[in-house]
Amino acid sequence: MNIKITLAQINPELGEIDGNLNQILHAIEAAKTKASDLIIFPECALTGYPLKDLVFQAGLHKHIECALQTLIQASDTLAIVVGYPKIIDHQMYNCAGWFFKGCILQEYRKQALANTTCFDEIRIFKSGSPQTDSIEHCGHRFSLSICHDIWEAQKTIGTTHADYLINISASPFHRGKRLQRTQIIQTLTQTYQKHVIYVNSVGAQDGLIFDGGSQIITPDGTCLYEAPYFETQIKTLSFNTLKPLTQCIETRADLYQALVLGLRDYIIKNNLSKVCLGLSGGIDSALVCCLAVDALGPENVTALFMPSDYTSNISEQGATQLSNTLQIQLIKTPITALFKQLKTHLTASESDQENISIPLQNLQARLRALILMYHSNVQNALLLSCGNKSELAMGYCTLYGDLAGAIAPIADLTKTQVYELAQWLNQTTERIPTMILERAPSAELAPHQLDTDDLPSYQVLDPVLELILRQQTELNEIETSTQTPLEQAISKKLKENEFKRQQSGVILRISESSFNLDRRYPITYNHIEK
Amino acid sequence: MNIKITLAQINPELGEIDGNLNQILHAIEAAKTKASDLIIFPECALTGYPLKDLVFQAGLHKHIECALQTLIQASDTLAIVVGYPKIIDHQMYNCAGWFFKGCILQEYRKQALANTTCFDEIRIFKSGSPQTDSIEHCGHRFSLSICHDIWEAQKTIGTTHADYLINISASPFHRGKRLQRTQIIQTLTQTYQKHVIYVNSVGAQDGLIFDGGSQIITPDGTCLYEAPYFETQIKTLSFNTLKPLTQCIETRADLYQALVLGLRDYIIKNNLSKVCLGLSGGIDSALVCCLAVDALGPENVTALFMPSDYTSNISEQGATQLSNTLQIQLIKTPITALFKQLKTHLTASESDQENISIPLQNLQARLRALILMYHSNVQNALLLSCGNKSELAMGYCTLYGDLAGAIAPIADLTKTQVYELAQWLNQTTERIPTMILERAPSAELAPHQLDTDDLPSYQVLDPVLELILRQQTELNEIETSTQTPLEQAISKKLKENEFKRQQSGVILRISESSFNLDRRYPITYNHIEK
Repeated sequence: MNIKITLAQINPELGEIDGNLNQILHAIEAAKTKASDLIIFPECALTGYPLKDLVFQAGLHKHIECALQTLIQASDTLAIVVGYPKIIDHQMYNCAGWFFKGCILQEYRKQALANTTCFDEIRIFKSGSPQTDSIEHCGHRFSLSICHDIWEAQKTIGTTHADYLINISASPFHRGKRLQRTQIIQTLTQTYQKHVIYVNSVGAQDGLIFDGGSQIITPDGTCLYEAPYFETQIKTLSFNTLKPLTQCIETRADLYQALVLGLRDYIIKNNLSKVCLGLSGGIDSALVCCLAVDALGPENVTALFMPSDYTSNISEQGATQLSNTLQIQLIKTPITALFKQLKTHLTASESDQENISIPLQNLQARLRALILMYHSNVQNALLLSCGNKSELAMGYCTLYGDLAGAIAPIADLTKTQVYELAQWLNQTTERIPTMILERAPSAELAPHQLDTDDLPSYQVLDPVLELILRQQTELNEIETSTQTPLEQAISKKLKENEFKRQQSGVILRISESSFNLDRRYPITYNHIEK
Repeated sequence: MNIKITLAQINPELGEIDGNLNQILHAIEAAKTKASDLIIFPECALTGYPLKDLVFQAGLHKHIECALQTLIQASDTLAIVVGYPKIIDHQMYNCAGWFFKGCILQEYRKQALANTTCFDEIRIFKSGSPQTDSIEHCGHRFSLSICHDIWEAQKTIGTTHADYLINISASPFHRGKRLQRTQIIQTLTQTYQKHVIYVNSVGAQDGLIFDGGSQIITPDGTCLYEAPYFETQIKTLSFNTLKPLTQCIETRADLYQALVLGLRDYIIKNNLSKVCLGLSGGIDSALVCCLAVDALGPENVTALFMPSDYTSNISEQGATQLSNTLQIQLIKTPITALFKQLKTHLTASESDQENISIPLQNLQARLRALILMYHSNVQNALLLSCGNKSELAMGYCTLYGDLAGAIAPIADLTKTQVYELAQWLNQTTERIPTMILERAPSAELAPHQLDTDDLPSYQVLDPVLELILRQQTELNEIETSTQTPLEQAISKKLKENEFKRQQSGVILRISESSFNLDRRYPITYNHIEK
């Protein structure tokens, strides 16, 4: 018997029950038009994910309850699987409801709560118990699971004799995640000899980027369908007509798309449209500028170029050329005179005239932030912070200066990754001027300054940094050898600059060791690996 | 048979194993001198608490292992109970070791992991199982428990026949906590008919303030000993000579002491000594200034008074008088000329001349932050942020302006609580000038501006705000009535300004609804209780 299944890879907004219900009802309507037998929505499709402490608002649950009644009624001729949080016996559960013919046939409760890296589900949810009953539908037997459940299949797969395991997810992207996910699903299908129907949400929530890629995998691990990544899609599939296909592998295009989606959703879901940023003539702000243009359109991006006496001609040329290529507004507003006035004022009122070299560098960065925030306030344009992960790790940035910004699109990319992504972006058309790509990195806060005056070269720094961050964000029992001087120096800088990172804007997450979301460190501590 | 017990209420530093071991060894030496039979240290005394992801550093555990060997050897004539994290069978546990005669007699694993409000123990630790064996020592039977275990006694009290339940804690202060704790302990002693020997740590770790108050309670709920609050103490008690006493109740003095300790430990444990702040002539900065002087001494506090055209005479008089009374350095540095130059520059480069009233107000706050941060950088003096909880909730503050600062000492106090604490502080001597206490609150960023131009009066706002924050940080199934327009307006402001709070410095926690530490909200969401 053939069955028609609709995968509804939607982009819910957090807490926006009415809007999400509308998205869901539209998808149901489309599925009914195609005579679908079953439609499947992602985890917490009704509310968005992760709700964090918003889940404690009592009114939210009344709202969810009303929306569920509407959905149950809509399940007259079509089975609906949808995710939502629910209070049952004074406990909060992360639920997947199976609705059909106006009834709740099953309300599955997520068992394997995710509580490492960026996840905090145990704070919010209680864990459900394994399911014993499968659901008969159109001659097939189905069972339900939610997201992380399939990562702990040996604990969560119940004793049902289902042929089809449905997994509804809100699973965020990070580099390498797609391969991990595919392996997990293939192992599961082969071990338990079930089809897996996986439906993931798409869209971004603060720093998390949900990447979609819903899929159907057979018991022998063959992929029968794979939805696009980073896009919504409502797709009705006639099961018997599906043919084996090769799954897409992750490329740099995915990383770029992830960042575009992450940035766009942050702006749009906060009911804004415009952004601004400082264009320095360096590669970081150039890449952020491209991301912003692709996320919001050139008409919504304004760049400020704020040269000082230390700004080179190449910076001005680079910034100008980039803004011309991207067709964005560039406001040129030198800080030289203002900086001089501030310097005179401050050095007059401060008796201490020694060790003012770094404070004066910070002052330039903060003066630029002050100008950018004025623009941001006047134009209602969110300020983007252009720092990368290497800088943030080493504290090579100024608090309330270049760290200022509501969102930091590339703060989870090392400088090496920034270069790689910029080079990929330039493959077909030169969007970022070659002079920006090829120049030596400099903060241009002092004469002839280069990043390598204060930091190791990024080729040396970045691989060691990534290794340290990976080791320091999970239980690691590997016998530690003595750290190299470079490793110790990086660990020390990581420690000393934690306070800055904890005051940064939202960081778009592309790794499992992103600052703040994944890596949760004290500010005050006294331990450096030796 | 009489037994001598030493309560070692120490102040460990996070990750500082050598220093903590030294503190512990000194206390052991003192206890041995007094012929003590048993010395008890707090939870995670060897490492500090909470370790957060620092606990994943492999080298830390090698270091702990060495320190434990030293402690086990030191237990030749004295039983030692001490807390530390330990990896057992590839899982991390929060342990309490009982060492005697050079052996580990028991290694108890914390069962009830705290994972609400400011706690995230489940991210780090695995839960232990109930204990079946008590420990015989000097003719008495003891069992061990760790902190939150006694808050879930029905699950964690094992089947041992111990007469004495030892509880080692790292339990942070909040207003009302002392009474809660006393009630929990008394109920426990009476229900299970055991003595409870409770040893809490003291000192602050980032925003958390551990308050000490170690105590011994008899099976009928009588207090036999209570250690001081907010101070370290190593106290050897001869059990048979203890007499019933009345426990101290919490007063405003405790709140003040908590904040002083929280501020001092943050500065000192980060190996700094000096702070600076902007003195506006208002009550918030006046109170923070008193706290800083009491935490660090007047020689380590510098205030900057930065008047503009909108600054009243009373502000200058108030700031001057306060700094004279407190004997701190006051740097007067008007921002009028700089503000004019900035305004000219910015309004020239921005075509949009409408809606610049708020941006210009923010600009003043940011200019002051820029001056303060220059001072902070030159003098190596940490900047204190003087905002209160009411302002932070309503967004009545400027990001990168008055929100700037490494630590925000009064950001968990409503304006009402700020007034109450300031009045209490002035009871014996007038430290805060009466003119500051009595004037109407104003940001002085526009002519004749008052807080009440934009906000409800604090007498109206604060109780409603506290109610909302309490309701929104725990599972709340109370039937919600329709919210009043004021409640809705506050919820809306809370939502709109979440992004600012997530970029604030460390907030000293004095409630169970402190921003960031307890209340964990998304920035992007669309739900307001109705």
